[in-house]
Amino acid sequence: MEIRKVVGSIVCTHRNGGLGHLDLRLLQDLKGQYVVATDPVDARVGDWVFVVSGSAARYAMGNAAILTDLTIGGVIDHWETEEAAAIQPTASLPARAA
Amino acid sequence: MEIRKVVGSIVCTHRNGGLGHLDLRLLQDLKGQYVVATDPVDARVGDWVFVVSGSAARYAMGNAAILTDLTIGGVIDHWETEEAAAIQPTASLPARAA
Amino acid sequence: MEIRKVVGSIVCTHRNGGLGHLDLRLLQDLKGQYVVATDPVDARVGDWVFVVSGSAARYAMGNAAILTDLTIGGVIDHWETEEAAAIQPTASLPARAA
Amino acid sequence: MEIRKVVGSIVCTHRNGGLGHLDLRLLQDLKGQYVVATDPVDARVGDWVFVVSGSAARYAMGNAAILTDLTIGGVIDHWETEEAAAIQPTASLPARAA
Amino acid sequence: MEIRKVVGSIVCTHRNGGLGHLDLRLLQDLKGQYVVATDPVDARVGDWVFVVSGSAARYAMGNAAILTDLTIGGVIDHWETEEAAAIQPTASLPARAA
Repeated sequence: MEIRKVVGSIVCTHRNGGLGHLDLRLLQDLKGQYVVATDPVDARVGDWVFVVSGSAARYAMGNAAILTDLTIGGVIDHWETEEAAAIQPTASLPARAA
Repeated sequence: MEIRKVVGSIVCTHRNGGLGHLDLRLLQDLKGQYVVATDPVDARVGDWVFVVSGSAARYAMGNAAILTDLTIGGVIDHWETEEAAAIQPTASLPARAA
Repeated sequence: MEIRKVVGSIVCTHRNGGLGHLDLRLLQDLKGQYVVATDPVDARVGDWVFVVSGSAARYAMGNAAILTDLTIGGVIDHWETEEAAAIQPTASLPARAA
Repeated sequence: MEIRKVVGSIVCTHRNGGLGHLDLRLLQDLKGQYVVATDPVDARVGDWVFVVSGSAARYAMGNAAILTDLTIGGVIDHWETEEAAAIQPTASLPARAA
Repeated sequence: MEIRKVVGSIVCTHRNGGLGHLDLRLLQDLKGQYVVATDPVDARVGDWVFVVSGSAARYAMGNAAILTDLTIGGVIDHWETEEAAAIQPTASLPARAA
C-alpha cells in the first residue's frame, strides 16, 4: 500500500455510473504526482493516508460494484521506526522516533 | 485512478474480437506518455479525465467481456484544493482554488 | 493499454505448459524496453500495436487457461488527433493529423 | 515479488474495517521509497523481506477478506548467487557468495 | 511478460505457508533491480527468462494456492528480429539475427 497526501477533491459531473455520487479525492505523492481515489474513511485535506489498489480497492468500499482501482485505507497518525539514524525519513512525512 | 488528457483516437481495423467496434481513445499524461483506453462516457478531445485500470476497467464498460485494461471513468470539470500555496498544481491542469 | 512495436519473436523451447506452442512476440517501447506478449492477431514485425495486460490478457487469448499477462489487442493503422500542434506526436509513431 | 526492508510500523487508528487491528508495517526499498504492508510472518525491524502484491496479498493473509494489496511473504536469511563477480549485489543487502 | 536473468536463489526459512518449500529464485533486470520469483521450469543461474505476473503467476505454478505474484514462464533460447539495424538489442541479451 502506497503513502499519499490528501490535497483536495475533483469535481466530475460526467462520470461512470459505477462511481455513483462518491466524493473523488485528489491525492499527491512526494514527487508531486496526482492520483484520484475513493474515500470510505472521510480523510481531511492535509491528511497523510495509505491507499489500497487493485481489486482490493473495490472490496474496501464495502461494495465490489464500486468501480474504483484506488481506495483510501486509513489515515496515518504517525509512524514508528527504530532506525531513524540509518534511514532518513522524508521531512514532510509526520514522523515520530519510537 | 490516474489523470490523463484525451488527445484523439487510434484507428485499428485489425483487432481482438473482445473489443468489438469500440472507439479506442488516445490519452496522454503530463510527461507525454501515450496510452489507449476504452471510453463509455464519450469524452471529447481536450478533456482531462481519470482512468480506471485492472479488472475494474472491464466492469466499468458495463460488460466484463470487453477486453480492456483501461477505461475512462469520468471527465474532470475542475479540482478543489485548500493547499494551493503549499502544493503547486501543474499549470496545464484545469485548477480552481476552493 | 500501452503502445508497443513488434520487433521479433523469442525462441523458448523450455517453457510453462500453460503457454502451449504459442508464438511469443518480442515488443519494444519508445524507450527501448523489451517485453514479451502473446499474439492472437498475427501482428507483423514493424507493426505498432496496443497491448492488454492483467487478467484481460488471458481472456483476450480466447482461453483464460493461457498463462500470459500481456496480449496484443490490435494493430494500430494510424491515429487521429485534433491537437497536433499542442502535443508533439513521437516522430516514430505512424501519425496522421485529422 | 519485490525485496524490501522493514523499518517500522505506522500508527493508524482511523482505518478501513477490512484491515481489522492488524499491524501495518512500514517498508523501504533501496531507493528510499516507503510502502505499507500487512505482516503474517512477524518480521522484525531491520529484516530484509520479500513482499507479495495483488490478489495474492489477500490470500497470503490466510483470509481473502483482509483488504491489503501488499503482504510480507517471508524473511530473507541470505542469498546465494554464482555470479557475484559479473553482477554487483547491492552492498546493503545481506549477500553470501555460494 | 518481462525479461529477467536468473542470478541465484534466496534462502528464506521463515516464510508464508502458501509458498511451501519452493525454491525462490533471485532475478535481475538490465538495470540491476532484483526481484524474487517462483520457478516451475527449473531455470539455471545465468539463464535469461521471461516472467509472468499477477494472478497468472499463481496459475502458472499449476496450483493457484501458491502465493506468488511472479513466476518464471520459460527460458529464452535466443530471439529473432528483422530490425537489428534499426533497434539496438542490448549487448548482454543472447541475440541472433533472423
